[in-house]
Amino acid sequence: MPSERQVGHTMLCLTPSGFSEHRRAIRLCQDQFENLEKHTQWGIDFVERYTKFVKERSEIELNYAKQIRNLSKKYQPKKNAKEEEESKYTWCRAFFTSLNELNDYAGQHELIAENMTSQIIAELTRYIQDLKSERKTHFQDGRKAQQHIENSWKQLEQCKRNFERACKEADRAQQYFEKMDADYNVTKADVEKARQQAQLRHQMASDCKSEYSNYLQKFNQEQTEHYHTLIPNIFQKIQDMEERRIERVGESMKTFAEVDRQILPIVGKCLDGMTKAAEGIEPKTDSAQVVESYKSGFEPPGDVEFEDYGQAMKRTVSETSLTNSRSESKPDKSSKGKKLFFFKKNKLSLKLVSMCLK
Amino acid sequence: MPSERQVGHTMLCLTPSGFSEHRRAIRLCQDQFENLEKHTQWGIDFVERYTKFVKERSEIELNYAKQIRNLSKKYQPKKNAKEEEESKYTWCRAFFTSLNELNDYAGQHELIAENMTSQIIAELTRYIQDLKSERKTHFQDGRKAQQHIENSWKQLEQCKRNFERACKEADRAQQYFEKMDADYNVTKADVEKARQQAQLRHQMASDCKSEYSNYLQKFNQEQTEHYHTLIPNIFQKIQDMEERRIERVGESMKTFAEVDRQILPIVGKCLDGMTKAAEGIEPKTDSAQVVESYKSGFEPPGDVEFEDYGQAMKRTVSETSLTNSRSESKPDKSSKGKKLFFFKKNKLSLKLVSMCLK
Repeated sequence: MPSERQVGHTMLCLTPSGFSEHRRAIRLCQDQFENLEKHTQWGIDFVERYTKFVKERSEIELNYAKQIRNLSKKYQPKKNAKEEEESKYTWCRAFFTSLNELNDYAGQHELIAENMTSQIIAELTRYIQDLKSERKTHFQDGRKAQQHIENSWKQLEQCKRNFERACKEADRAQQYFEKMDADYNVTKADVEKARQQAQLRHQMASDCKSEYSNYLQKFNQEQTEHYHTLIPNIFQKIQDMEERRIERVGESMKTFAEVDRQILPIVGKCLDGMTKAAEGIEPKTDSAQVVESYKSGFEPPGDVEFEDYGQAMKRTVSETSLTNSRSESKPDKSSKGKKLFFFKKNKLSLKLVSMCLK
Repeated sequence: MPSERQVGHTMLCLTPSGFSEHRRAIRLCQDQFENLEKHTQWGIDFVERYTKFVKERSEIELNYAKQIRNLSKKYQPKKNAKEEEESKYTWCRAFFTSLNELNDYAGQHELIAENMTSQIIAELTRYIQDLKSERKTHFQDGRKAQQHIENSWKQLEQCKRNFERACKEADRAQQYFEKMDADYNVTKADVEKARQQAQLRHQMASDCKSEYSNYLQKFNQEQTEHYHTLIPNIFQKIQDMEERRIERVGESMKTFAEVDRQILPIVGKCLDGMTKAAEGIEPKTDSAQVVESYKSGFEPPGDVEFEDYGQAMKRTVSETSLTNSRSESKPDKSSKGKKLFFFKKNKLSLKLVSMCLK
């Protein structure tokens, strides 16, 4: 077998083992970064999605509060004479009090929306920006480190190739010198020239070897730092960032419930106000008000008196006409002690009577 | 002055006093009925308006519940592979638990709507029908009683007019008889005829008088019953009806608050469920899960070995090619005790690695 092919075979044999371990490490590291990039992006997407969720909840609360407020407003007494009339009755007042409590009730749901906006949505929106920027930094650092070790590797490969080529050339020069040295037909000067050439090549290979050796040492230091310090540190930072994100999400979820829980006692008070208002209704008082409003000063008529036209037959008509008829037409007051429910007498009622009779 | 005019004057004088008292009583009674009709109609209108109010509130609750349910559903995990992936993480599980609690929360507001519908709207709708029918009965009874006393009065007036006319005719017959009796030119037969006529008229007037007297007694009994029993009873029934209506309104208002109050403890439990879910979030566990998911079986590469091509210079290449290069390319395992965070070794990860390298 020619030595040329053997050298070629040696190179193929020497290079792949270190090369494949390096490539596999770089590749797996890259995969890890890609996985973490996907995972952390999913985390950010979740925080954005969660923020959107809270925003939608907040809008539902606002909408609910608005509808409750409108309902309360719609049934409030109209600002006119009727209002005064209505506020006389305990059941009307109770209803209007209920409506006011309902309005406060709506206010509490507005508060949910406000607190969710300020304590969750605004906070998370700011936080997402910070998170995105922090995440970007970590992956940029990762890419930079990967790029750096890749470049170092390429430079090491170059040094190795230089050394290999120099060895081959020194080997070839050595063989040439040995061939010249063994040939009786070659001049001493040519032998000396070949010897010097072999010596020079040997020196060059030796220089390449120390350059390669130095660079190898430097590369191994860098590689150790890369895989044992730099990359683990970046991964750790990403892990810390992820843990802080999860904590933050947990806090927002707690706030979400807390903001809602805070209104419960106030809502309870609004409901108590409604119950109290309803309990303040007095049917007897209200019906007495109706009597007061509609009473007339009128008392039931007494018995109708007998009008005796027969007397005229006994006397001249002129004698009886005015005296008798007037006294007879006076109603008998004796039977009028009992008052009719809606017939009470006082100044107001007399006024009402006169109004009624106009 | 002629007696004709005097009689006429007497009539004008006798009639109005009883007449006006009767008319005023009838009129005022009518006014009372009209006022009460208006007032009770207003009361019924209120109950209808209140029922509409509760219906609108109930619709707002249903709408709110629907929106909350949709929100919960919208953010639930999609039924696919990702769901299983997501449920690995405590923060995902916490969010899904929160969504389920929110769904229950919505259910409580549906319950408000349901209870308002069954306990207030349905009840009041039935009640309004009863109330309308009861009210109609009372005012029909009132109109009937008023009509009856009015008819009795008219009949009494008729009896009185009959008696009055009979008296006038008896008076006229008496005067005619007296004139005939005093006239020397008139035959005894004519005087006798006039006397008999006067006697007949007197008898007729006497009959009318007792008819009038009897009817007057009957009327006065009826009038007393009308104003002291019938009408006050009807008014009392209307008043009772009104008081029951007000009580009923009060009860509905209490139920309105109660139905809402009943859900507060359950809503509180839903919120506690959300808080508990959020408290169950474990950032460390979650990040450990991420490590588990993305770990590869790979360990950081060891130092790259020096490849001494220079040896070839000393020996024949074929001697060194395979033996040295193979042993030299083996990485030094001594420095690999420390594990990189994302580089753990196990079956799963080896599988992942092989997938990554394909």
